[in-house]
Amino acid sequence: MDGTTGFGELSAPGRVAGPDEGISTAELALAARNHGLPLEALRYDTSPPGLHYVLVHYDIPATDADTWRLTVDGRVGRPLSLGLAELRERPAVTHRVTLECAGNGRARLAPRPVSQPWLVEAVGTADWTGVPLSALLAEAGAGEEGAGDVVFTGADHGVERGTEQDYRRALPLPHAADPARDVLVAYAMNGAPLPPQHGSPLRLVVPGWYGMASVKWLRAVTVTDSPFTGFQQTAAYRFRQRADEPGEPVTVIAPRALMIPPGFPDFMTRARVVRPGPVPLTGRAWSGHAPVVRVELSDDGEESWTDTEVTADPGRPWAWAAWHTTWTATPGTHRLTVRATDAADHTQPLTAPWNRGGFGNNLVQRVEVHCVR
Amino acid sequence: MDGTTGFGELSAPGRVAGPDEGISTAELALAARNHGLPLEALRYDTSPPGLHYVLVHYDIPATDADTWRLTVDGRVGRPLSLGLAELRERPAVTHRVTLECAGNGRARLAPRPVSQPWLVEAVGTADWTGVPLSALLAEAGAGEEGAGDVVFTGADHGVERGTEQDYRRALPLPHAADPARDVLVAYAMNGAPLPPQHGSPLRLVVPGWYGMASVKWLRAVTVTDSPFTGFQQTAAYRFRQRADEPGEPVTVIAPRALMIPPGFPDFMTRARVVRPGPVPLTGRAWSGHAPVVRVELSDDGEESWTDTEVTADPGRPWAWAAWHTTWTATPGTHRLTVRATDAADHTQPLTAPWNRGGFGNNLVQRVEVHCVR
Repeated sequence: MDGTTGFGELSAPGRVAGPDEGISTAELALAARNHGLPLEALRYDTSPPGLHYVLVHYDIPATDADTWRLTVDGRVGRPLSLGLAELRERPAVTHRVTLECAGNGRARLAPRPVSQPWLVEAVGTADWTGVPLSALLAEAGAGEEGAGDVVFTGADHGVERGTEQDYRRALPLPHAADPARDVLVAYAMNGAPLPPQHGSPLRLVVPGWYGMASVKWLRAVTVTDSPFTGFQQTAAYRFRQRADEPGEPVTVIAPRALMIPPGFPDFMTRARVVRPGPVPLTGRAWSGHAPVVRVELSDDGEESWTDTEVTADPGRPWAWAAWHTTWTATPGTHRLTVRATDAADHTQPLTAPWNRGGFGNNLVQRVEVHCVR
Repeated sequence: MDGTTGFGELSAPGRVAGPDEGISTAELALAARNHGLPLEALRYDTSPPGLHYVLVHYDIPATDADTWRLTVDGRVGRPLSLGLAELRERPAVTHRVTLECAGNGRARLAPRPVSQPWLVEAVGTADWTGVPLSALLAEAGAGEEGAGDVVFTGADHGVERGTEQDYRRALPLPHAADPARDVLVAYAMNGAPLPPQHGSPLRLVVPGWYGMASVKWLRAVTVTDSPFTGFQQTAAYRFRQRADEPGEPVTVIAPRALMIPPGFPDFMTRARVVRPGPVPLTGRAWSGHAPVVRVELSDDGEESWTDTEVTADPGRPWAWAAWHTTWTATPGTHRLTVRATDAADHTQPLTAPWNRGGFGNNLVQRVEVHCVR
């Protein structure tokens, strides 16, 4: 595992909230630090800093771009140690990538896994610019001695369920080294240097996978010949029904459609108000498995569904698609539901999929709309 | 008041949570949209977008800088209607300003007022660039017909406690028109155009006052000859013990010091871990009344206090001061408390000041630190 253990009650095992247990101060402290995408910001093709979701496991580390080094070592023929200037000298690529937190939807589960309490908004899309990981691995001569894992180490440091650690995740070498997977060592977001909370000065971006794979404040890439068993790979980010089972790893983003809640909100409840007549409905949809091919709307409690117009850019396969339709509001209260389906025939469920970590809950989005004259 | 009323249960009166009532889904939805300053980001002199706190009352409006107009009218001799280019042609000023949400500290109150559930982190400092409001009011010939209020209208639209409205606040004309108050019509934050969530393309910045005065997405400045009685002036943002009293208006920022929690955190509880030995402690402190002249630290449950080193830039009177000291950690659990005092002799309280809206709770910050070997 990653480091010293034995912090006692200071750092407790994961748990599920009791039946009547409200959001705790600890969960609220996470919600006040981290933030989702305000849903009206789905209107922007790319999400600027402050709108793109952020989850920081420990503290945002104090980093210095001028002295930052990225090492590529382990089972490689030619270990590398590169500064930012050296990375910028290499051929750069830009990918538009939708990232989503694996815990998105967690706070709507019953019983509720106690952790960062996302409702539905932990998503964002940005243009990430940097060096292909496949190019760096090739330059270092990785894979010449057979397959293994590639371990990514960030500079953020903390303790989690008793294990002190730098944040660390791995990808199988065949994935990490495959140019078609478009894994990126990124130094720019939407054309500007990475902001502190998004990994300044350097981060990994793993298209199609939940955000835990995209290690921020990246300082080391280590090729190993055995599977990585670190905390974030084998203890956290597993689909488990019981605490004592190994569980399946959390990897690819499940399909999801979100709508910009129409009309205007009540401040306190965020309840939506519209006036009678045609109401444009727009939003985004994405899946890590395959392109989204269908977004459906229901306004009758999910009895019937109608297709919306989906617009995707085939040149940007890792980015969300846009969808739009028009709905006619009549006085009263309505429930609007949207549901995405991808080309691999994954469809969003109408009942939340539950697991102890609260991962991958891609339940359909339901928006209650009050039409008043 | 501001607009149509009568939304019934859709938009209810303000309330205080019951004794055992946890954070509701509605409060959590606000916490997931809005965000505070992660406390380690107190290390930056200015807070970049995504780290600077954000509170959006309704939705972030869809705005277009190219067609945006700001009107200055009402009781003025020469009404103005200005686009962004015309504002940029005028002499620009930049002020470094610390803004804090009036509701900062609300979620720590007992009983808890139900609203945006800030703990302690709703603060940020930025360099704001734009045109002095005093210059625009002089150009429009405001004040030549006597005193009154200046009403600022934003483009964000919603309903709050039954009142449909565009967000709107006012300042007394003598304050708004006083060049020494440095009230700014800002089009840039930290040298870049305003991001959507901070008021793109134009906002008011009122140095020294809680954030509710700094109207975002500013589209109209209206000089009136009678006091403004809009919702955000007379219904919201009042210090009240009972719902049926008029209350005192919320205005100037009370003093507060915050420390960067030392060491490293536990992921879930944010509990802090340090190792034995000297621990540098740093943070910021501010007050809207007068410069902060003293920041004290206690490590013995507030029995005794020692002064820290406070560094302020006299050329930036509206920005937070920095403070630092060194504390020696010994094994065990410690409570560190910091307390700011300003030159007008306002000191942070050791007991939270309570009011129904949860405004101005500048209780001292207490950080529990676990020193382990």
